[in-house]
This record gives sequence, C-alpha cells and structure tokens, in this order.
Amino acid sequence: MNGAIPAALLAAVRSGRPLIHHITNSVTINDCANITICTGAAPVMAEAPEEVAEMVAAAGALVLNIGTLSATQVDAMLIAGRRANELGIPVVLDPVGVGATRFRTETAQRILDTLDVAVLKGNAGEIGVLAGTGGSVRGVDSGGIAGDPIETARECAHLTGTVVSMTGAVDVVTDDSRVFLVRNGNPAMDRLSGTGCMASSITAAFVAVADDYAVASAAALAAFGRAGERAALEARGPYSFRTALFDELAALTPDDLAGHARIEER
Amino acid sequence: MNGAIPAALLAAVRSGRPLIHHITNSVTINDCANITICTGAAPVMAEAPEEVAEMVAAAGALVLNIGTLSATQVDAMLIAGRRANELGIPVVLDPVGVGATRFRTETAQRILDTLDVAVLKGNAGEIGVLAGTGGSVRGVDSGGIAGDPIETARECAHLTGTVVSMTGAVDVVTDDSRVFLVRNGNPAMDRLSGTGCMASSITAAFVAVADDYAVASAAALAAFGRAGERAALEARGPYSFRTALFDELAALTPDDLAGHARIEER
Amino acid sequence: MNGAIPAALLAAVRSGRPLIHHITNSVTINDCANITICTGAAPVMAEAPEEVAEMVAAAGALVLNIGTLSATQVDAMLIAGRRANELGIPVVLDPVGVGATRFRTETAQRILDTLDVAVLKGNAGEIGVLAGTGGSVRGVDSGGIAGDPIETARECAHLTGTVVSMTGAVDVVTDDSRVFLVRNGNPAMDRLSGTGCMASSITAAFVAVADDYAVASAAALAAFGRAGERAALEARGPYSFRTALFDELAALTPDDLAGHARIEER
Repeated sequence: MNGAIPAALLAAVRSGRPLIHHITNSVTINDCANITICTGAAPVMAEAPEEVAEMVAAAGALVLNIGTLSATQVDAMLIAGRRANELGIPVVLDPVGVGATRFRTETAQRILDTLDVAVLKGNAGEIGVLAGTGGSVRGVDSGGIAGDPIETARECAHLTGTVVSMTGAVDVVTDDSRVFLVRNGNPAMDRLSGTGCMASSITAAFVAVADDYAVASAAALAAFGRAGERAALEARGPYSFRTALFDELAALTPDDLAGHARIEER
Repeated sequence: MNGAIPAALLAAVRSGRPLIHHITNSVTINDCANITICTGAAPVMAEAPEEVAEMVAAAGALVLNIGTLSATQVDAMLIAGRRANELGIPVVLDPVGVGATRFRTETAQRILDTLDVAVLKGNAGEIGVLAGTGGSVRGVDSGGIAGDPIETARECAHLTGTVVSMTGAVDVVTDDSRVFLVRNGNPAMDRLSGTGCMASSITAAFVAVADDYAVASAAALAAFGRAGERAALEARGPYSFRTALFDELAALTPDDLAGHARIEER
Repeated sequence: MNGAIPAALLAAVRSGRPLIHHITNSVTINDCANITICTGAAPVMAEAPEEVAEMVAAAGALVLNIGTLSATQVDAMLIAGRRANELGIPVVLDPVGVGATRFRTETAQRILDTLDVAVLKGNAGEIGVLAGTGGSVRGVDSGGIAGDPIETARECAHLTGTVVSMTGAVDVVTDDSRVFLVRNGNPAMDRLSGTGCMASSITAAFVAVADDYAVASAAALAAFGRAGERAALEARGPYSFRTALFDELAALTPDDLAGHARIEER
C-alpha cells in the first residue's frame, strides 16, 4: 500500500478529532484514553447502561473491549452497540482473553451475533478461537494457533463478516477478499501491558475517518508500529519505552508515516 | 493575590498531610492518587456504600468525580457527602462530562441539590451547563460557552451557592462576590488525559487546610499550573511531560510558588 | 540467606513465566499488570463471578487485594480462592486499608477464615490490626503499631496460620517459626502510590515457582527492593523514579540479585 494512504488517514484523524467512545477494561483504560489523544482523537469512557446510548450518538467510533468483563458491562456494550449500528457509527471489538473462559467466549460470540461489528482486533490466539480453527489463549496472551496465520484471519473474517485485524510480529488485516500484512512495530511492544488495547483505540480513531475499514485498520497498526520503532531507539526498559511510545505517536507526522509504513497487500 | 498566601497553603498541606477521600472515575484514578501524594497529601479511594461514611470521617476533604458514573457510585457519593457535611468536611465536586448525557447532568444536579458542596471544579463547558447560561460538552471536553467566562462562573456560583473553579487558558475562581484569575499553566496540560481530575485532587488538598475555599482553590490551580510550566521545559511530548509534571509538583517549594503564582483578584 | 536462593527463584520466574491471576483494586491495577510482566510472569485480571473459577485454574498464583472492595468483588474473591485451594494454587492476600473501615476488616477476616491463604502481605499497621496486637491505619497508610515489629508479625502468622510478609523500612517475613529481615529498598518507594500492591504481585510470581512461601516472599521483596535501590540513582522525583523502578526490575539479573539481596534470617 502506498504510504500516502495511511498518511492521509492520520492527517484526517488530526484535523477531524473524532470522539472515540470506549467501553473497556479497568487495567488499561488510562492508556487507552491517553493513546487516543496522542493519535489525535478525543476519548470518552462511559459504561453506565443509563447513558451509553446517548454518549455513543456523539462519537465517531465505539470500542468494545472485554478485558475485565462484568454482566452489567455486557448490557452496556449491547445497548451502545445497537445505537451505534442504527447511526452507522463503526464498532471495534477487542475480544481480550476470548477462549480463556467460557464467559469471555460466550460474550464475544454474543456481541458478534447481535451487533454489526466493523473491525475485530485480536491477537493470534483470540482470532484462532473465534475462527473455530484452533487457537489457544493463556490469561490474555496468545498461546498460538493451529494453522496458517493468513488463512486463520481470513476464515475468521469470512465467518464473522467483519474486518479482522490480527496483531503479531507481522499483523494480518483482512476482509476475507483482501489481505494486508503490516510489518511495522518492535518486540518491546509485547513487553508492556495494554499495547493490544491501545491498538484497538488507534484503530477506532482511523476507522472513524475512513470508509474502507480494512485499509484504516492496516494504517492504524502501521502508525502505532512506526511509533514503536522510534520509541525503541530511546528506551532503557519497558517503562521508558512506554513513555517514548506515547510521545512518538503524538509526534508522528503524516510525512514520516508516508515514508515508513510497511503495508503489503497480498 | 500576594504569592505568600498560596505558598503558606502549600506548606500547610505538606505539614498537615490531609487524607483526601476520592470517589472517582476509573480512567484517572491512579493519576489522582499519585498527584495527591505529590501535592503532599494522602489519597484514599473507596466507593463501596458499605464503607464510605466511615472512610470519609477520617478525611480532610472529599472529592466526588462523575467521570465514569454508575448508579451504585451515585449512592456512595450521596452517603459519603452527607456524612462529610455533618462533620464539616469540605466536598469538591468535579462534574466531568456534565451536559454530555442526561445521566451526568441529572447526577451533578442531584449532588448539588442534596449536598453542601464547597467547590465546584469544571471546565468552561461544564460550568456553562450548570450555570444554565449555555455551555457545550463533547465527551468530557469543553465545547465552549455562550457568554463571558467571568460572568458564567459568577452566575454558576450564585446559582449553586458554591465556590466555582473554572479551568481554562486563564482559570476563573469565584464565590460570586470575589473573582480570582489564575494565569499559571501550560497548554501541554490540555494534551494529557486527567489533568482536570488532578486539579480537583489538588484543590481538595488545599481546601482541607484552609478556611477560605475560593483562595484555596485559586492557590491550588496556581501550584498545579506552576508545576506545569516547569514540566514543559523538560518534556519531549505528552508522556514525558506527564512524568515531569508529577516530579515538578512534588519538587515545588513554597518559595518558588510565592515567586511565581500569578493570581489576580478582580 | 545466601543470595543464590533469591537469584534462583528470579530465574525460575523468568523461565516458567507463571500466570498470576489478580482480583485487585482499580487504583493500581495497571501498575500490578506491568510489574508482573517486569518480574517475568504473566498477569491476568478477572473479577466476574462468572469466570474467576475457570481463570484461576490456569494460574500459578492468585492475588486478592482489597484496595477498592465491592460486595460483588468479595464474592469473586471467595469463589476464586476456594478453587485455588482445591487445586493447590497459592493465594496471596493484600489486606489494603484493613482497620480503616469495618467493611475492610470484616472482609479480610472472612477471607482468612474461609480460605487457605499462603501469604498475607501488608504494611505494619495492617498486620498489627490482623494480629490483634494493636495497629492503626489511616486511609491505606500504616499509622504504626503498638509493639515490636517482629513480634507483631509472628503473632499474626501464628494466629492466621499464614506466612506474614510485613513491609516497612526493614521488611519482616515470618511463618512464625522462622523470621527473615529484608533490608533492600529505598524511601522513594513510599512516595509512590501502588508499591505495596506491586509487592504483592511480585510475591505471587515468586510463590508460584516455590515450595517454601516464606523464602519466596523474602526473595520477592529483596528483588523489588533491589530494583528500587537502582531506580533511586536515576530518578529526579517520584514519577521518574516510577519509570526507573519498572525498567530496573525488568533489567534485574539473577547475578545482580545474588550479589545484593540483603536477607537476614533471625
């Protein structure tokens, strides 16, 4: 993919500053708020069933992240998601830890069955579980998949009718027909809690300003990965890497992204 | 205002180390705990209806922040607030996102109607909504107000009977009769999640050691703003600014604040 | 204690990468996730009663931290704890703020009465309260104890039948018969929210790979304290200390720990 495409999307996020409504876990909720700002968008976190339908109506995208689920939160996710669907607001689902417990698996499945999800963003194990092709999840970490990554992602996209954005050493983004491989990033991103959740927030910011959700998802991962590459040059360990990661994403210019995005269409 | 006044209040926080009981949102709860420590006070976060009346009785001030409301949390806020009122412990209300949803607006109004609130700390949009003079809120960000900032803040103070502390490029603090303008701060504070919530925690620490809540609120914003000014000199982006902001507030001396607080009484 | 013992346990955490299931407070939940990773283990946070029994079954240890209790969370703690006991998975209890409210004291007591707790990790005031020998707690901070620290910790261990790990300027770890004093650490650790909670997460990681929970608890505090010593050399204030603390724990080698652990058996 020509680097001009992710660059234009990043510029559109910065100028449009879409509101990204999150219903998310309590572990990385602060990371998600700050990474959304660093991307150029505006975060709001709200999960009371009393208010989510009203809040999402003002948003450019909705993130549903099941990292620390509760029954009340599932209700709120379905209320907000239905309203988002009515209004044509894209929904990004991050099925954190799906496969680790029945509650998570059933909830992710219920969201996919009930709502029109725009992008399903997960690690390889999570996507493998949802593709039904074999995937294992340990806590919230990928335990690997049975088959080929691209085929797993495509099968999941085919089955769910969503864009699948599968993160890993090489990210795979597919809407079943097209496949994008994103080669940006740095292994330090795996040694930090919350980078998966942050990727979903950034994806939502890009999807909010795009019509093509597969292209936007690949562009978001390239932007995040590029920030990670730059941050790794300055870091002395996982927490100074974290500081640099947020700083570098905030400083990332469309020009830099145009020159360094490594997105291959297969 | 003579810089000796905020300096004396900062010194009083440091020597008295008041306990600040927070019932607050899950996004910035860690920021609020750490900024309270950096100010020189001691944070405690507790929101179970079973324990809040007992916890607040040991506190020097109570912060009620509606950033991620739930029905149970509203109950806890009212229980804790009533007990604080009985004991003469000042209550700081941060009406995060009021105006963005009916649930937030009704809850903020209910707290103001039920409790004796010492300080109402919000951004311009939030204060405009509560003043009834026109204010808009997008997610949790100010969308601006219809009229003059000072008149809006005074109208809100008049209507609610509280000290109003309205943050912005220039902060406006008023008890309706007196008006203080605080000119400390740095724009980098707006590019970080949670600075509004932190301002409420710092305000509570200052209010806990003062009789004059308007003066204490202005002093708190001057101290936070001064830390922000110093932090901006060292920062390379929003997250290194964040690190520096906490470090600088912890390092802020009464002498430095005396020399650099920029509080004008109108 | 010979430094080779904590060094071997640190190496075992790094190679075994045990999953540490946390049911914990919302203030420091992100700190706990990241410190667990920096120790070399894998964190998972899950507190829905629907899933905790299933999640804990995959874990190497379970942390129960009562910092921001709710009635539902207590139910989840008991469900997860019973399942952990059935499977022989060690349980680390952090009775945050016990003594500050009746709800916290009764909950900690209920957990100790219902579950087989492997390690009880608290500050001096909290351990004094649970020992019944006099301890005071202000918010979540120790307000001191009535008697001798070692005798207080031993009495608590005797009464509860657990290993007691009492943090302070000198940490005291005891299973009633043996007493270990840990002299690693730096006062900067007390000026940061969450270091107590982090100590529990690190303890759980060490306990997950050990048979002797007293030795593992002392080793965990030595490792954390050693990281604190190194971090203090680089820090300019509490937040740059925090960044350095995580970086230094991640960088801590078994060799460094072998040479610098200061654990005295009494």
